[in-house]
Amino acid sequence: MASDCLSTTFATLADPTRRAILARLVSGSASVTELAEPFDMSLPAISKHLKVLERAGLIARGREAQWRPCRLEAGPLKEVADWAELYRRFWRASIVWTTILAN
Amino acid sequence: MASDCLSTTFATLADPTRRAILARLVSGSASVTELAEPFDMSLPAISKHLKVLERAGLIARGREAQWRPCRLEAGPLKEVADWAELYRRFWRASIVWTTILAN
Repeated sequence: MASDCLSTTFATLADPTRRAILARLVSGSASVTELAEPFDMSLPAISKHLKVLERAGLIARGREAQWRPCRLEAGPLKEVADWAELYRRFWRASIVWTTILAN
Repeated sequence: MASDCLSTTFATLADPTRRAILARLVSGSASVTELAEPFDMSLPAISKHLKVLERAGLIARGREAQWRPCRLEAGPLKEVADWAELYRRFWRASIVWTTILAN
């Protein structure tokens, strides 16, 4: 994944509603109406978030005209995890160090 | 970490220069001048990025007036990894499914 794709992914994830939509899609595909249910938000507002998620490749949508179900796309999320993983050694050392200082 | 802190972290990481600065800091603390070296960017521009990183809690800076070394702060990066980890089961299933379809 090119660096600017990762930038797009991070920018897209910088919104709690969009992260909540992704969390909902883990349990299966859903329509815009189903996705909108937990939010105090209009359908057009949810649709706007879905467009941002779709452009970032974080979701894909079905082709059925009436019911275009959204599904989670795993690729960009794996890229985020792989990126964060590079720092695991660092934060583990930091936790050990904090524990040593506390005792 | 509150949801809006995670939003701030993702928004801060949505910039390749800021991610490159974090990658540099894995190998140890560095001054603004040292951090600016690999970039075709002015010191004030780098300082601006450092301020954004500092506000997001991704770096901390020393108190020495002349040489305020920057160091990586592990906490928010661990939160990103923990968040992405929630989707591991999902993307693993996706990879298995893609492999099955390809064979």
